[in-house]
Amino acid sequence: MTRPITFLSDYGLADEFAGVCRAVIAGIAPGARVLDITHGIAPHDVRHAATVLANALPYAPAGIHLAVVDPGVGSPRRALAVRVADADRVLVGPDNGLLWPAIVRFGGAAAAVDISRSPARLEPVSATFHGRDIFAPVAARLALGAEPAELGDEIATDSLVELELPGPTIEPGARLRATVGGLDRFGNAALIASAEQADEAGLKPGRPLTVEAGAGTWEAVYARTFADVAEGELIAYLDSDARLALAVNRGSAAQRLGLRAGDEVTLRPG
Amino acid sequence: MTRPITFLSDYGLADEFAGVCRAVIAGIAPGARVLDITHGIAPHDVRHAATVLANALPYAPAGIHLAVVDPGVGSPRRALAVRVADADRVLVGPDNGLLWPAIVRFGGAAAAVDISRSPARLEPVSATFHGRDIFAPVAARLALGAEPAELGDEIATDSLVELELPGPTIEPGARLRATVGGLDRFGNAALIASAEQADEAGLKPGRPLTVEAGAGTWEAVYARTFADVAEGELIAYLDSDARLALAVNRGSAAQRLGLRAGDEVTLRPG
Amino acid sequence: MTRPITFLSDYGLADEFAGVCRAVIAGIAPGARVLDITHGIAPHDVRHAATVLANALPYAPAGIHLAVVDPGVGSPRRALAVRVADADRVLVGPDNGLLWPAIVRFGGAAAAVDISRSPARLEPVSATFHGRDIFAPVAARLALGAEPAELGDEIATDSLVELELPGPTIEPGARLRATVGGLDRFGNAALIASAEQADEAGLKPGRPLTVEAGAGTWEAVYARTFADVAEGELIAYLDSDARLALAVNRGSAAQRLGLRAGDEVTLRPG
Repeated sequence: MTRPITFLSDYGLADEFAGVCRAVIAGIAPGARVLDITHGIAPHDVRHAATVLANALPYAPAGIHLAVVDPGVGSPRRALAVRVADADRVLVGPDNGLLWPAIVRFGGAAAAVDISRSPARLEPVSATFHGRDIFAPVAARLALGAEPAELGDEIATDSLVELELPGPTIEPGARLRATVGGLDRFGNAALIASAEQADEAGLKPGRPLTVEAGAGTWEAVYARTFADVAEGELIAYLDSDARLALAVNRGSAAQRLGLRAGDEVTLRPG
Repeated sequence: MTRPITFLSDYGLADEFAGVCRAVIAGIAPGARVLDITHGIAPHDVRHAATVLANALPYAPAGIHLAVVDPGVGSPRRALAVRVADADRVLVGPDNGLLWPAIVRFGGAAAAVDISRSPARLEPVSATFHGRDIFAPVAARLALGAEPAELGDEIATDSLVELELPGPTIEPGARLRATVGGLDRFGNAALIASAEQADEAGLKPGRPLTVEAGAGTWEAVYARTFADVAEGELIAYLDSDARLALAVNRGSAAQRLGLRAGDEVTLRPG
Repeated sequence: MTRPITFLSDYGLADEFAGVCRAVIAGIAPGARVLDITHGIAPHDVRHAATVLANALPYAPAGIHLAVVDPGVGSPRRALAVRVADADRVLVGPDNGLLWPAIVRFGGAAAAVDISRSPARLEPVSATFHGRDIFAPVAARLALGAEPAELGDEIATDSLVELELPGPTIEPGARLRATVGGLDRFGNAALIASAEQADEAGLKPGRPLTVEAGAGTWEAVYARTFADVAEGELIAYLDSDARLALAVNRGSAAQRLGLRAGDEVTLRPG
């Protein structure tokens, strides 16, 4: 029984990169279902990709999880296949932190191999497209039932590159200062902050708050969903990944507040 | 035998929303083929999405038709699974008119249920991502053969939110004033008007006409296809969905005429 | 055993065109796997599409290869199904040069048919969407095992429209002047020039060179991969399709040099 492969990258869909990887997989594992999570990660944005991956994978069936956001392709950075501890899942991607939050979410690494010189790789390996030449063929072989140990050189599970997300600064009961982790197509801005951290800063469901971003200040409500406020009004809310987020009902918070990924915003009760 | 699921949304592909829905479906119904119609509907453009859906579905195999353009997510709007009268097809999506033209095209609703509190939903249901938590899992269960009545509460088939498209104003033999329903990647502009309405307004195949849009006026020909005129010339024609449309041969009518969806244009014979 | 179908077009993914073609295929050949190479080819860019197709297909499993970039749709241009000589592959698309480099790569055409009036076509055939009405249904029937001769009228294999790519001008040991064939999402610029041609012009691995483009001149290194230079530095390199290319490590060569597809650049050793 061939296992499904999820696939996330920063390859975009304007070019053929993701399609060529899917073609390589289909050649090796014709019965493998490939589930594209997204290929729209901003080029080289390892941090955002890592968050998206960790939030998406719990909704995906167990199997192989291929992820490629790889600004260091061709450098000596390692290429990984990692079996996680809590589930029958193997993650495949570069050793640059991309896989780290997902590994943590599934209980840590149970086994890890460096697949840079995998016997499954396509020869000659190009210097710039390891998705095609290393990661996709390894993922396909894993989907067919190969063990990571057959496809790479064992490495210590505590040697993986970790990823640190910039958590919020909190003044208890008074303010929360957080980084914009990502902006979606609707202009909603996910902050790197949790419900508990919002509580700690004194934000209360249904109550007003003040948002400072860049040079501006806006009034908002800490609401449950967009439709809880009138069209065009700003809310803070917990998004579908349980992160604190900002949105405008039927509008764009990103545009209203002039937000970009990596910006800092401050939320105050009242 | 698992049934195929078509999928249309305004989620875009830059974010992971569509991918997560596909992952949820694959977890519940591993054998279900998911056919993406498009996820590029402009955010919240229910009207355009409804037209695209109704025009595309006759080309799709019978099965489950998932559609999510849902500006009212989290509000009390109902969530639907609708079995149509003339075909073995079940449509799934929000009750905001999105499904209406497709339902009409397939002979009306034979049965309808509200799936807001479906036993198939993923708990906890988020307030902002019902595609993942309600619509996708219900579609997957339908693909496995469940009946709508098992997955929601029966509602009256005449209680569904309908969608009215703004038809053209016609001065017989003299002019047709129509709304731009949608613009495609090539800059072709589909009008909300039919061949019969063009006839009634006096437009004749192969004959010149005048197009007014915004502050400008352009000469055109009522032709069969782009290649019927010289490069760079404007045509009116019947597009592949049998709608009256405007195009520039190897150019962009949208750009030439400065058109946006929802704009009005006037066509006159001569 | 249904054969896989690769699919490349300039339909984009914002509209439903590619999705409708996939739906048509699924209706005719429910078991056919459709492998999207890309639909992000710039509208009507037959030359770039042809190069992408020829470079991608060797990585795809043998089967049916559907490609639609078709500015002449509705004109008398022929519609093709071509069996190649060196592999069990059938290419399907318009007779405008799009398929030519891939046909050459697989040893030339062994047999060709004009499918414009194929018995597999959907009636009525629209004047503007032959992807849906001709190419997709023919590809689906081929995937089910039909022979090209059953689906069209035989034509001479030496009558196909060929495609000429503008090769570089080389001053041996001194300079290479080449056309930008394509720019990818990362801002990397693929030139229509090979490793041998770079050699002939005197470019040496690991050595500096000068790049002239538009009004500017830049210093670069002829390197193996992005990570061989410091962040922000320009390299010339052989890309994963073995073409000479320009890139900026963790930046965009397209932006740095103000490049667009079709531009000419000059590379000099030293």
